[in-house]
Amino acid sequence: MLRMKIAVVAPSCTLKPEAAEAVTAIAAARGDVELVIHPQCFLSDGHFAGSDVARLAALRQVMADDSVDAIWFARGGYGSNRIAEAAAADLPSQARSKIYLGYSDSGFLLAAFDKAGLEVAHGPMVQDVARSGGEAAIQRALNWLARRDEAAIEPGLDPGQRAMAFNLTVLSNLLGTPIEPDFTGAELLIEDVAEHEYRIDRTMFHVTGSPGVRRVSSIRIGRMSEIPDNDPVFGSDAESIVRDWCERSGIAFGGHADIGHDAANRVVPFNSGSN
Amino acid sequence: MLRMKIAVVAPSCTLKPEAAEAVTAIAAARGDVELVIHPQCFLSDGHFAGSDVARLAALRQVMADDSVDAIWFARGGYGSNRIAEAAAADLPSQARSKIYLGYSDSGFLLAAFDKAGLEVAHGPMVQDVARSGGEAAIQRALNWLARRDEAAIEPGLDPGQRAMAFNLTVLSNLLGTPIEPDFTGAELLIEDVAEHEYRIDRTMFHVTGSPGVRRVSSIRIGRMSEIPDNDPVFGSDAESIVRDWCERSGIAFGGHADIGHDAANRVVPFNSGSN
Repeated sequence: MLRMKIAVVAPSCTLKPEAAEAVTAIAAARGDVELVIHPQCFLSDGHFAGSDVARLAALRQVMADDSVDAIWFARGGYGSNRIAEAAAADLPSQARSKIYLGYSDSGFLLAAFDKAGLEVAHGPMVQDVARSGGEAAIQRALNWLARRDEAAIEPGLDPGQRAMAFNLTVLSNLLGTPIEPDFTGAELLIEDVAEHEYRIDRTMFHVTGSPGVRRVSSIRIGRMSEIPDNDPVFGSDAESIVRDWCERSGIAFGGHADIGHDAANRVVPFNSGSN
Repeated sequence: MLRMKIAVVAPSCTLKPEAAEAVTAIAAARGDVELVIHPQCFLSDGHFAGSDVARLAALRQVMADDSVDAIWFARGGYGSNRIAEAAAADLPSQARSKIYLGYSDSGFLLAAFDKAGLEVAHGPMVQDVARSGGEAAIQRALNWLARRDEAAIEPGLDPGQRAMAFNLTVLSNLLGTPIEPDFTGAELLIEDVAEHEYRIDRTMFHVTGSPGVRRVSSIRIGRMSEIPDNDPVFGSDAESIVRDWCERSGIAFGGHADIGHDAANRVVPFNSGSN
């Protein structure tokens, strides 16, 4: 039996040991994947899972490892932007034969790697096992990594259509930087968590005001969860906000997307046509 | 005696009547300014001081009024970005003989108007009277509007040097949009309020990764106030974060700036050389 070797690194925040243990047990019980959790995942340096140097070194090490088939980001939080440009520079050829999976803060790496021509996907991460119903998210991610299970993929994706998915706030913070990818013709899926409606509105102003983003074919809205109370009541909900900025900017609104900061988060391969 | 006529409009959130009364009394006692608070300031429509249409109409009305010498933004909050592009389009000639003063969310208008060639300044707003020591902020703003009082101006500014000042988060959200101004050669002063250190770090990544911002002559840091606790402890403070991103991006760090979300906030005319 062919076992897919999956390396886990943490370019943002520290992975909880309990999450690592739980996912290791799930992977072992499946038998079709070999999960290698890099010790860097458990480092801690202020906000981050080790210094920029340590996080970049671990990521570059597994990228250059010919035996590794997939790189799975341990969790989000914040910090992958600090190493994303360097991680995507001067790529070893081994980096090009792998798939990279993550979401939330890992979106900075998805962007930089997509721009560099690597195969990336937006989907569940190791730490998601701690969510309610989290094992389903882990099985979905592993089903997709191990055998490109179509049931794991976001159901609205068209196989012939380039797609991209991002946390809205992360997307906003990478626009105009050296890691901004090419959005031309892509269906853009967005999700967010724990942002006030006024911030969602402001971020949509920024994102839909970007010349690069205006080249997408459409925007679909995933789940916007844990929205704190707006003071005063904002007067519009997240979907209306997204629809409004799509209309103002001349971008087609494509409806809902089955992604979000939750256990139901489906996989969005950026180049779904190539699978 | 020459009385400067100052029109107050609220392109973002609703002005509190108590603040309007207090500032009206201060202005009346001075005798060198005529303050006209537009009724639009007291409208309320969800988060905003009236609909986009109402806020834009009030702003455009006072911009086109030949008897008005200065336009003073009532307060920040959120929302001026929603009308900034339209406010700066097809300008009547009367708009060019005025000065525009505000900060925080009003930064979207400062940007759009600076780009359109209008004379703008970053400084106290009407609602600041409610701050501890707020009357001093109001007197400072009025001293500057009425007689370009040099004591009101941020003390590090060089008269021959173009300067710009923004709330960091507002600046981040306007980069790449149609209202991004020309930063070339300007000294850029930044301040922020109530943002976590991880957010300040992420926003500095975004701002210093912008090709436009990389054309500034230097960045100075104003006050970063009311920073919520970072979980975990971030490992670096706001000044170190700003210094770090300046160094990474090749932008000169110019030290401290006497601006912020507080009563001590000094005035930063964007084209100080012209005063």
